[in-house]
Amino acid sequence: MAVQLTFDNPVFAQFAFYGTVCVLKTMAMSMITIYQRLTRQVVANMEDRLVKGQKTVFNDVVVERTRRCHQNDIENVFPFILVGGLYVLTGPDPWWAAFHFRLFTGCRLFHTIAYLFAIPQPARASMFGIGWFTIISMGVSVLLRGRF
Amino acid sequence: MAVQLTFDNPVFAQFAFYGTVCVLKTMAMSMITIYQRLTRQVVANMEDRLVKGQKTVFNDVVVERTRRCHQNDIENVFPFILVGGLYVLTGPDPWWAAFHFRLFTGCRLFHTIAYLFAIPQPARASMFGIGWFTIISMGVSVLLRGRF
Amino acid sequence: MAVQLTFDNPVFAQFAFYGTVCVLKTMAMSMITIYQRLTRQVVANMEDRLVKGQKTVFNDVVVERTRRCHQNDIENVFPFILVGGLYVLTGPDPWWAAFHFRLFTGCRLFHTIAYLFAIPQPARASMFGIGWFTIISMGVSVLLRGRF
Repeated sequence: MAVQLTFDNPVFAQFAFYGTVCVLKTMAMSMITIYQRLTRQVVANMEDRLVKGQKTVFNDVVVERTRRCHQNDIENVFPFILVGGLYVLTGPDPWWAAFHFRLFTGCRLFHTIAYLFAIPQPARASMFGIGWFTIISMGVSVLLRGRF
Repeated sequence: MAVQLTFDNPVFAQFAFYGTVCVLKTMAMSMITIYQRLTRQVVANMEDRLVKGQKTVFNDVVVERTRRCHQNDIENVFPFILVGGLYVLTGPDPWWAAFHFRLFTGCRLFHTIAYLFAIPQPARASMFGIGWFTIISMGVSVLLRGRF
Repeated sequence: MAVQLTFDNPVFAQFAFYGTVCVLKTMAMSMITIYQRLTRQVVANMEDRLVKGQKTVFNDVVVERTRRCHQNDIENVFPFILVGGLYVLTGPDPWWAAFHFRLFTGCRLFHTIAYLFAIPQPARASMFGIGWFTIISMGVSVLLRGRF
């Protein structure tokens, strides 16, 4: 019987856990951005200027850094879930699959820390790169199993 | 037998409906952006200047507002589908699941209206916030069911 | 028995192949951006200035073009996978489904070429538009099969 996406499948149950951790981390960026906008008094829309002193600014260094980190998550975490779900269905070796999921999740967590605290390179670049190759590795498995 | 992603599963059939409504709404933003670019004569690329009078501009207030709304959809609707699909597989209570799907979809529709027409706050902020917590709620259910 | 997401389902196996091609193409944009940043000496963060001569610039015409292309992929490829996965579960006609998958993938590949090489319009606009309607077509099938 073909591999299915159900919580009875331990590889899927692990993918669901780590995938959700990564998505929730990505969504946390929204709240960090809102916090920074409030404390630094910079907003993106006129109607958001509720308190005296707030300015409509698009080049605040702290807010824009957080937004770039958020965008990088979108560019990597979403592909991880999309390709990862297909990868689970190829029936990978459970140890090898768990290695992919954990490596990617760890890289993205450290990537965020490296980005937000501007840790000297190659901290952020290497975390991005390893995560990127993790998705490529899963993608190749899907392509080999897929139909042209 | 474990819950599966099929249209025989009424919770999934509802998730598929509301999820697709949200994605199509997100995609509608592309067309609104194009309409605004054409009527306001502002384009993003040199080769898009087909008619005399069009300018390459990156700070048009109307176009950039629409693009921020589009980006906010990407940051929320895509996580909703990704986490929601996993949530369906946890076998949630059908009433509770429908509540999540409908609340999120309603919030995102009103969020778009509030954004595009610059309705005074906290209209947009509350719609964003409720939608955000809806995804977190589903995400926690997935984490509790997943495997570390 | 209801249609399932497994590699035993030839429509799914084809969706997995073309969907992964599109996601990997989207992820390739990250590497093109990095290559352009290195060769043009423009970076987005202070800590990325490792070599003398590199500047923190946000309006480099080549890098920003690649980033717009990447963003357009995010706005179209991710919805294709999200809606496409639901569409496969509606049990579409295999020929018609393959037509959707191949048309979309072809459009996105040519869209990228048209964007990066600034090919005169309507090359890029038509590729975007056909791809957009392909997703809408699949989305309508899902909505008709879903539950309100």
